[in-house]
Amino acid sequence: MVSSNTETVPAAARKAASLPRNIQISNLSNGMTIVTDRMDHLESAALGVWVKAGARDELPTEHGIAHLLEHMAFKGTKNRTARDIATQIENVGGDVNAATSAETTSFYARVLKNDVPLAIDILSDILNHSTFETAELKREQHVILQEIGAAQDSPEDVVFDNFQSACFSNQALGRPIMGTPETVSSFDADNLRSYLSDHYHGPNMVLSASGAVDHDAIVKMAESRFSEFGSTLPREPEACCYTGGEIRQQKDLMEAQIVLGFEGRAYHARDFYASQVLATLMGGGMSSRLFQEVREKRGLCYSVYSFHWGFSDTGVFGIHAATEDADIPELIPVLLEEIRKSGKQIEQEELDRARAQIGAGLMMSMESPASRSAQIARQILLFGRPISNEELMERLSALTVERLRDLADRLFTESMPTIAAIGPIAKLPGLADIAGQLGTRVPEAAQ
Amino acid sequence: MVSSNTETVPAAARKAASLPRNIQISNLSNGMTIVTDRMDHLESAALGVWVKAGARDELPTEHGIAHLLEHMAFKGTKNRTARDIATQIENVGGDVNAATSAETTSFYARVLKNDVPLAIDILSDILNHSTFETAELKREQHVILQEIGAAQDSPEDVVFDNFQSACFSNQALGRPIMGTPETVSSFDADNLRSYLSDHYHGPNMVLSASGAVDHDAIVKMAESRFSEFGSTLPREPEACCYTGGEIRQQKDLMEAQIVLGFEGRAYHARDFYASQVLATLMGGGMSSRLFQEVREKRGLCYSVYSFHWGFSDTGVFGIHAATEDADIPELIPVLLEEIRKSGKQIEQEELDRARAQIGAGLMMSMESPASRSAQIARQILLFGRPISNEELMERLSALTVERLRDLADRLFTESMPTIAAIGPIAKLPGLADIAGQLGTRVPEAAQ
Repeated sequence: MVSSNTETVPAAARKAASLPRNIQISNLSNGMTIVTDRMDHLESAALGVWVKAGARDELPTEHGIAHLLEHMAFKGTKNRTARDIATQIENVGGDVNAATSAETTSFYARVLKNDVPLAIDILSDILNHSTFETAELKREQHVILQEIGAAQDSPEDVVFDNFQSACFSNQALGRPIMGTPETVSSFDADNLRSYLSDHYHGPNMVLSASGAVDHDAIVKMAESRFSEFGSTLPREPEACCYTGGEIRQQKDLMEAQIVLGFEGRAYHARDFYASQVLATLMGGGMSSRLFQEVREKRGLCYSVYSFHWGFSDTGVFGIHAATEDADIPELIPVLLEEIRKSGKQIEQEELDRARAQIGAGLMMSMESPASRSAQIARQILLFGRPISNEELMERLSALTVERLRDLADRLFTESMPTIAAIGPIAKLPGLADIAGQLGTRVPEAAQ
Repeated sequence: MVSSNTETVPAAARKAASLPRNIQISNLSNGMTIVTDRMDHLESAALGVWVKAGARDELPTEHGIAHLLEHMAFKGTKNRTARDIATQIENVGGDVNAATSAETTSFYARVLKNDVPLAIDILSDILNHSTFETAELKREQHVILQEIGAAQDSPEDVVFDNFQSACFSNQALGRPIMGTPETVSSFDADNLRSYLSDHYHGPNMVLSASGAVDHDAIVKMAESRFSEFGSTLPREPEACCYTGGEIRQQKDLMEAQIVLGFEGRAYHARDFYASQVLATLMGGGMSSRLFQEVREKRGLCYSVYSFHWGFSDTGVFGIHAATEDADIPELIPVLLEEIRKSGKQIEQEELDRARAQIGAGLMMSMESPASRSAQIARQILLFGRPISNEELMERLSALTVERLRDLADRLFTESMPTIAAIGPIAKLPGLADIAGQLGTRVPEAAQ
């Protein structure tokens, strides 16, 4: 199954690279980017504003404010009540929503072709003219307390919050995005206004629209609606660095939720794409090493997979597994053995398959306007330009099994591991034990 | 905001109705339907086999076998090991998965254009030639025990399983789809073969493919690969009838998860579409009554929405809300008041908006091959033919506010309510109290 050199880019990837795109980019005078991506056969559009500011841009006293702001954007403007915002977009069958992540906040809509102007008008209104009225703020703070409570009741949410905290101990990137009940309740309208004016600046913002869209019309609307944002680049958040560590929570549950992690690679790092491919072949699908060994051959878990998250200046590689108490003593050695093996043996067939999976995934995402608008916006915020499918495929095709083995050898041994676990976890080995078994080469492993 | 009669079908709905589709239908000699839906601009396809047999077709001694069969379909055939199935589809960047519901089991794949034959070959192989080898079966039963355990750790999963059980007490439709650890562990290969040969018959099966597909080529492949299934119509499952009832579970959680339900309408019922519209305007989006009253005006919940599920011979209308202990005494009267109000006042504006939302949702789903293939397959299994968008829109446009008010008045009072709740629920009123407050007109309400 070893492919010759000319075949290392699979058909799916070559196809993705050859897809034409109608991308047009303009900039407002304050530096905000307006990007459109016309898809001729569609009758609808997906569009939104992506801002390069998220939970990690918060000061310690601001913990949870990025997410609160995302909620408050829908609670009324100088021109619209909360009810107006909801009814105007839903009257035309559209919808509007928002999301906060560590490094990005986004506000997006899905509408039919003729309703693109309405969507832009609403998006600009909620970002420019929100009033943050006190009674609305109090109610929304209470809504977020319910959101936090529901997350605390979900073992999977808890273990991933703890995982992030242990990866980035005592840093903004390690804090839960929703904040704590205490911090969320402490903010007033001035706090929101000041966070907004500090972080929502033109050079940090992209209006991205895919589907049945007209570039010139959108730019014209954007000029009159987004020019009030500042034109300077906001201050960069503090650099974060992966620490590794351990957060364990013994709890009476049916399943132990376990996340094991390592320092990954930043978006701009040389090994970013290699890390994505490594996550795919380790635990990205049914044919992956972990799925085959842990679930298919041994029946130990229903859910077992690996992932790689990039951030601006760091990254995380992780493995999630859920299993019952009695299976932990078999599961952990198997996970560690698969990790150790990956530094020594990765086959050409696996690399080819991972590239085919990523290539086909990319191609299928090209069929969805929502995926396209989000992807282009993120690429502009991270790299300053959309990355063509050709370029992505070139990066994938440059990878070799030697390079992946070398990456795996380093990635799994050169950082202190991270363990987050909740449930019946008495049989789960401790961090030092796991680091020792992996041959972790950082000084802390000897502790 | 009252629309004139000619405008009661909103633009989104009219647009959906006018979309052309290239649907072609053939039947194998055993009665299996082959349906294709060509989308000329796509480079990929979504396809699968939908079977009108699910958890409710199980005998009491077979509880969980439909779902176990869905898992075992991927564990090896006469021609392929479990690993072959996974690697062959992922080598070309495709994926394959399956799902079991109360009335349907589906096996589906997403692939690039040229890999449609491979996908059909794999789907037919796993349905025709699975070996159910003993060691594989033992392992997969253990995997399902982990899946059941994780669901039991999720309060939302638990409350919805309990809700379904309370709606259909002591009936197949009320049992959790995954089965219990005891029943799942009890099945052997013969049980699986006998369930398969009893329920997977041509007249009950649809091969549905949307996207970059060629009808004649697919029919030709299907003829040689799906003709072995029986040609008689399998026995119908026992009729189910909504009972209503209550399952409460006091538990130390941050949030109380509450589902309140009523008898809904079967797919073929006159009021099926009216019930869908009622669910949309009651709690289907940000502008809905429940979202506006419960979350926007009062800040009581993060999650509050309503839903309507149709089945062949019955249906369920439900409202889900999660809130903390202290808010339950305010939440419940508000929910009950919104329910009572809907029987008296529904405005034309709300009906128009719900229709626009459903119409636009339909139009956007037309842009996804996965949505289209699933929708067409389900319509053929339920109605014997694909339902055109025109026909769906005609049914929506025939609705009036009077008819919706009348439906709401009946739907919320003519059946015993159902309550499922888990968490800190001491302050939640009992079933008889809630039935009394709603003016439930069934004899049991007086108990």
